[in-house]
Amino acid sequence: MDKTEYKYLDKIDSPDDLKKLSIDELYVLCDEIRDMLIKTVSRNGGHLSPNLGTVELTVALHYVYDLPKDSLVWDVGHQAYTHKILTGRRDRMSTIRQKGGLSGFPKRSESKYDAFNVGHSSTSISAAYGIAKAKALKGDNSRTIAVIGDGALTGGLAYEGLNNAGRSKRNFTIVLNDNKMSISQNVGSMAKYLTQIRIRPGYIKTKKIVEKVLLHTPVIGSPIRKLLLRSKSKLRTSVYRNTIFEDLGFVYYGPVDGHDIRKLIHAFNASKNVNQGVLIHVMTTKGKGYSYAENDPNSYHGVGKFDIDTGEPLSSKTGFSARFGDAMCSFAETDDNLCVITAAMKTGTGLNGFSKKFRDRFFDVGIAEEHAVTFASGMAAQGMTPVFAVYSSFLQRSYDQLIHDAAAQQLHIVLGIDRAGIVGDDGETHQGVFDVAMLNSIPGTTIYSPCYFDELKTDLDRAIYHDEGIAAVRYPRGGEPYRPIDYRSDGVCTIYGSGKSAALVTYGRLFSYAAQAKEILHEKGTDITVIKLDRIRPIPEEALEAAAEFSKVCFFEEGIIQGGVGEAFFLRLRDHGFKGAFELCGIKDKFVPQATVEQSLSDLGLDCEGMVNKITWN
Amino acid sequence: MDKTEYKYLDKIDSPDDLKKLSIDELYVLCDEIRDMLIKTVSRNGGHLSPNLGTVELTVALHYVYDLPKDSLVWDVGHQAYTHKILTGRRDRMSTIRQKGGLSGFPKRSESKYDAFNVGHSSTSISAAYGIAKAKALKGDNSRTIAVIGDGALTGGLAYEGLNNAGRSKRNFTIVLNDNKMSISQNVGSMAKYLTQIRIRPGYIKTKKIVEKVLLHTPVIGSPIRKLLLRSKSKLRTSVYRNTIFEDLGFVYYGPVDGHDIRKLIHAFNASKNVNQGVLIHVMTTKGKGYSYAENDPNSYHGVGKFDIDTGEPLSSKTGFSARFGDAMCSFAETDDNLCVITAAMKTGTGLNGFSKKFRDRFFDVGIAEEHAVTFASGMAAQGMTPVFAVYSSFLQRSYDQLIHDAAAQQLHIVLGIDRAGIVGDDGETHQGVFDVAMLNSIPGTTIYSPCYFDELKTDLDRAIYHDEGIAAVRYPRGGEPYRPIDYRSDGVCTIYGSGKSAALVTYGRLFSYAAQAKEILHEKGTDITVIKLDRIRPIPEEALEAAAEFSKVCFFEEGIIQGGVGEAFFLRLRDHGFKGAFELCGIKDKFVPQATVEQSLSDLGLDCEGMVNKITWN
Repeated sequence: MDKTEYKYLDKIDSPDDLKKLSIDELYVLCDEIRDMLIKTVSRNGGHLSPNLGTVELTVALHYVYDLPKDSLVWDVGHQAYTHKILTGRRDRMSTIRQKGGLSGFPKRSESKYDAFNVGHSSTSISAAYGIAKAKALKGDNSRTIAVIGDGALTGGLAYEGLNNAGRSKRNFTIVLNDNKMSISQNVGSMAKYLTQIRIRPGYIKTKKIVEKVLLHTPVIGSPIRKLLLRSKSKLRTSVYRNTIFEDLGFVYYGPVDGHDIRKLIHAFNASKNVNQGVLIHVMTTKGKGYSYAENDPNSYHGVGKFDIDTGEPLSSKTGFSARFGDAMCSFAETDDNLCVITAAMKTGTGLNGFSKKFRDRFFDVGIAEEHAVTFASGMAAQGMTPVFAVYSSFLQRSYDQLIHDAAAQQLHIVLGIDRAGIVGDDGETHQGVFDVAMLNSIPGTTIYSPCYFDELKTDLDRAIYHDEGIAAVRYPRGGEPYRPIDYRSDGVCTIYGSGKSAALVTYGRLFSYAAQAKEILHEKGTDITVIKLDRIRPIPEEALEAAAEFSKVCFFEEGIIQGGVGEAFFLRLRDHGFKGAFELCGIKDKFVPQATVEQSLSDLGLDCEGMVNKITWN
Repeated sequence: MDKTEYKYLDKIDSPDDLKKLSIDELYVLCDEIRDMLIKTVSRNGGHLSPNLGTVELTVALHYVYDLPKDSLVWDVGHQAYTHKILTGRRDRMSTIRQKGGLSGFPKRSESKYDAFNVGHSSTSISAAYGIAKAKALKGDNSRTIAVIGDGALTGGLAYEGLNNAGRSKRNFTIVLNDNKMSISQNVGSMAKYLTQIRIRPGYIKTKKIVEKVLLHTPVIGSPIRKLLLRSKSKLRTSVYRNTIFEDLGFVYYGPVDGHDIRKLIHAFNASKNVNQGVLIHVMTTKGKGYSYAENDPNSYHGVGKFDIDTGEPLSSKTGFSARFGDAMCSFAETDDNLCVITAAMKTGTGLNGFSKKFRDRFFDVGIAEEHAVTFASGMAAQGMTPVFAVYSSFLQRSYDQLIHDAAAQQLHIVLGIDRAGIVGDDGETHQGVFDVAMLNSIPGTTIYSPCYFDELKTDLDRAIYHDEGIAAVRYPRGGEPYRPIDYRSDGVCTIYGSGKSAALVTYGRLFSYAAQAKEILHEKGTDITVIKLDRIRPIPEEALEAAAEFSKVCFFEEGIIQGGVGEAFFLRLRDHGFKGAFELCGIKDKFVPQATVEQSLSDLGLDCEGMVNKITWN
């Protein structure tokens, strides 16, 4: 990476250096940071729009607060690049999201400035409040700040946090980064409500009154200040409407222009002196400062490598998500009962087309995976067929609803599980490696794991029209893998080859590696049979019968071993009289760090080479 | 059960019969229902206070709405006894919560009047909104009503539902049953907020205005009515504060006296004509009409059999919950870092004493299991040791937080998992049979499953002071089971006996059955060894080594098989060269219906007899 010289940024090795700059210099610094962000993301891929929107906000936070003594918790964390740049990680930004490099999200193990790991949405208020409460018990007077987007505020966990933190009797600050978006347009009543308070003239006046009180009454907790606050609060109550946040016990301050550093610094300084929960409502523009991203923040939310001048992605490949969306459209053409639900992942799950074509039957519920499943169950109780399209790692939020609202009353809901298996550069928090174990434990569930586009559609057809209860189809991120020319799918289980040395059992994307391993082994004089499961729960009897014939069975699984398919397969093999050797390869009791998908599969011994080695060595 | 004669109630076979009564007669009916409720619960145990609080509310709902055409979704469902009595199930009330009898919760399979199964909290708005949306798509104009308590409103799922349903353009009614309690005193900012709006005089006036508009403008959706509504809404906005519910898009109506049938009927009728989401705020008294319950609704929330005249429970036994609470107190005496968190289950998890003694370190976060874990993780990030006391089946709500917020950053949090295993009369929704499979899939987790009180304390000590990451201790509902006189715990794994015929491997409460099975088998001339796991994850090596010596191993597990300990045990046995027969007995891909614990264990083949049979027959 060629190195650009930056007048101010090159001198910032910690937030202390930032504090030496004048406000005007901070503006120049922000320009430099934006330049670095665009260059970094264009080369490595990553989250662009959210980071461009929070440059001034982050600079102001570091200017006012005393990190790492004070604790800053980012929600989701995809907007923390500026924070990384300002906290001694500038020189390593070129390694972001790469194997061994900086994470795309805050990580405690990476820096003392990162107070809490993150990746999923809506955790920041709860985590920060836990940090604040612990500090209180320890007699530590430092401050704790959570930065949460309006999108993350649609998640129930954020509300649970608000409901608790609203009672805080110590300084506890929530910065609401309101860009009117989750990843795409934000949905729900809270979003509409925020629009209302943004344009409410009353608040401008209130703000000034509050400012006066807060800034010019220096003795924290003095009786006079309390009296003033109380009387002002009464005044506001009678003259202006309160906000939801005040109703929940917070001092509300805003809206503040999130690109005006002076105003931000002013607001943060004001909030420092309040001995209770404060919510600062900051308005930002997603994608700010890069025209392509500003005009289409959704497309530049999370991106692969792209050309800075044209904004065009450097590689594009039609993936499983798009094929899923196409399949949904084609089913919906002839089936009026089919409905599709997304939890703020319309684009990511390939549903832009469906959402336009079948507007009435498309439901974006916000970042609310719990609600999505219970809502789907309600629809199913009325005879509709709801399909919930969701990323594997986010489905973890719905475990209880899947058990309690869908499975326990045998309601037929379909899950389209995207990003199943290793996802690559997003790392630990986004790996789709728990969904199989999770669903395996739920009675009556059917799970499919196709390897190719045509199988995706066939499996969706099975799940929607032939199964009962919860029926899930899980498919990987990205495009179709290698397909051997002589491969023909043979239903829910395919016996590929006729070698006698060993049976290699696998499912999903790993079949493409298994097919290659089979060829390589053949060249080495070892002939194996690959048993490919399309349906992984219940395990097809024919797969067990076929495998039981072998003296050696190797099972490869792109997911966590404990609770996965391999354990169940082995137990069932015993019923079929199997007495041979059994090897189970998968993810053994650990989290999988960021890397490319190929690197991770290789590290886990789940790629072609790993399979060849496992079969040859044992 | 001796049969009481009721003047009105005896004639109510369906809601249609109810509609023939005058309002004055309805009041007498309510007295009769209360009498029946108290008698039923005193004999069968069950939920008393919540049901006594909702008698008039339920009668009024059935009086106004047209069930089962209209759909009524109860939140939690422990307050639906009156609903059952009024919908043709009166004669079967004596069977409630017994094997083969009526469920203590609504069940679609039980009655067409039950629109959605329930048991866990905060699902009603999401489910009802799904039902309403499905009806809209089908062109079905019937109504959908959700009844939710103020306690359930502390759950994030309820908020996710509100956030979505607030946008409804069709009639959709939420009845907020506000009794100021979850199970015990309700907590959080929302609870405080409800107190505020309850006493706000403005609303009395507003209510009258709204009533006039709604009741005396019969043409639904007429322009005049819309205009009126809009202008009134503006008036309210300028003169009175809005409620949170209005901010989220609902028409708010209330507060209404929940024991005044006339007013309830009035409010429900008014809401029927509104083409959007309506929230009717109803004030009720938990335990209403039974002095003991009214004075102490918490103790009479869910009860065993009791004496009606004295209010005294007919059996009482110091159980694991109380011992857990004692242990927490004893640890906290010498350890300032220990904090305890509950999600609205202070009494149920035995923490009344702790909450008084260590007020600063006790956190009741409301019905918010997601928040509880993320909050605990935040505390752990600051070096505290949080212990989250939670019922097994409710922990299902925290799966993603356990993975993402605790395990992925190796934070040390402790789980005290109460009601682990079969719970008995609460049935499917409350069985603690998924926690092991769920936690097994999470990297780095340690799980203990003690059988006796002393082991509970020892395991808690291990979890708190000797383990890292997530450390869970799970224990059953109720008291200590049978303990053989010669049993001595030998650490995380105990080899009990020295018989060579077979090894019986088990954990938790089932050990007491295994010990008895061993004695019975001995009398029959078969000597076995019982391998008792105290730590079930990671599986102790000594257990595997011991079991591998046998030609026959039977594993008994009081939990779901898929993802459980048995599967993992079998896979690991192979590493120890085991070639013998392996039998795994547990819960195989199904939900366990209500019955006594003894009945369920017997049906599942997990009691003494089942164990003897399994070992003898194979």
